[in-house]
Amino acid sequence: MDQRISAITLGVADVNRARAFYEKLGWTATSASDENAAFFQMNGCALCLFPTKELAKDAGVDRPGSGFDNVTISYNVGTQAQVKQVLAKAKKAGGTILRDAGPVFWGGFTAYFADPDGHAWEVAYNPFWKINAKGNIKLPK
Amino acid sequence: MDQRISAITLGVADVNRARAFYEKLGWTATSASDENAAFFQMNGCALCLFPTKELAKDAGVDRPGSGFDNVTISYNVGTQAQVKQVLAKAKKAGGTILRDAGPVFWGGFTAYFADPDGHAWEVAYNPFWKINAKGNIKLPK
Repeated sequence: MDQRISAITLGVADVNRARAFYEKLGWTATSASDENAAFFQMNGCALCLFPTKELAKDAGVDRPGSGFDNVTISYNVGTQAQVKQVLAKAKKAGGTILRDAGPVFWGGFTAYFADPDGHAWEVAYNPFWKINAKGNIKLPK
Repeated sequence: MDQRISAITLGVADVNRARAFYEKLGWTATSASDENAAFFQMNGCALCLFPTKELAKDAGVDRPGSGFDNVTISYNVGTQAQVKQVLAKAKKAGGTILRDAGPVFWGGFTAYFADPDGHAWEVAYNPFWKINAKGNIKLPK
């Protein structure tokens, strides 16, 4: 198996509401998107929005979970100031601030917001992880 | 905001156990990985393993959630046969089959397995999504 992922799918209560939030961040859904599912082209993978109940069913799981996802998605930026800018943008788009921007023990500067369905996004300045011109992360080996 | 993600972090009960599972899939963790966290270089982003309780705390959330994540990660392949091969590999590595391989309503052929912490991975053959030579997904616009 190659070290890659093809898509992340977030279970949502209302695809249109969730899609509107991500569009307010400045993202564009593909033309295949509709009220049943939405797709965003990311850097090498897709971000998908799909009704939570149907996602659970598709995965062969009895029912949706509750509370925190136990999964986070990170959006890294190049400066501490950009962390604050992205957090402000997410708040303005209707997101909820889970943890305000600040330094963390490992030397980074991060914040978290939740989308309208409670999915947690970290916004991070990580001085140890390089971001190339295409926006891809390159980890130290 | 660019349409990109930098990392996906899975909350796990035991970083070493979770890391061993992903290593059995054939993946290699970076040298910065230890018993407190593990990092895998993916196609443009990182896959991270971090203790669930600490992940919740980092995200400013009271406690871990329960049940299904309401999030899935997909690993796409080029044929139906490869879906079955990856599923068999995941099972052999200690994963749990959530849903066996089969056709789905939208024209794909998919399966799901769970890692030792219950995180759901879809293995998918999607004839409508191109996978380029670097393993990146290119969605129809």
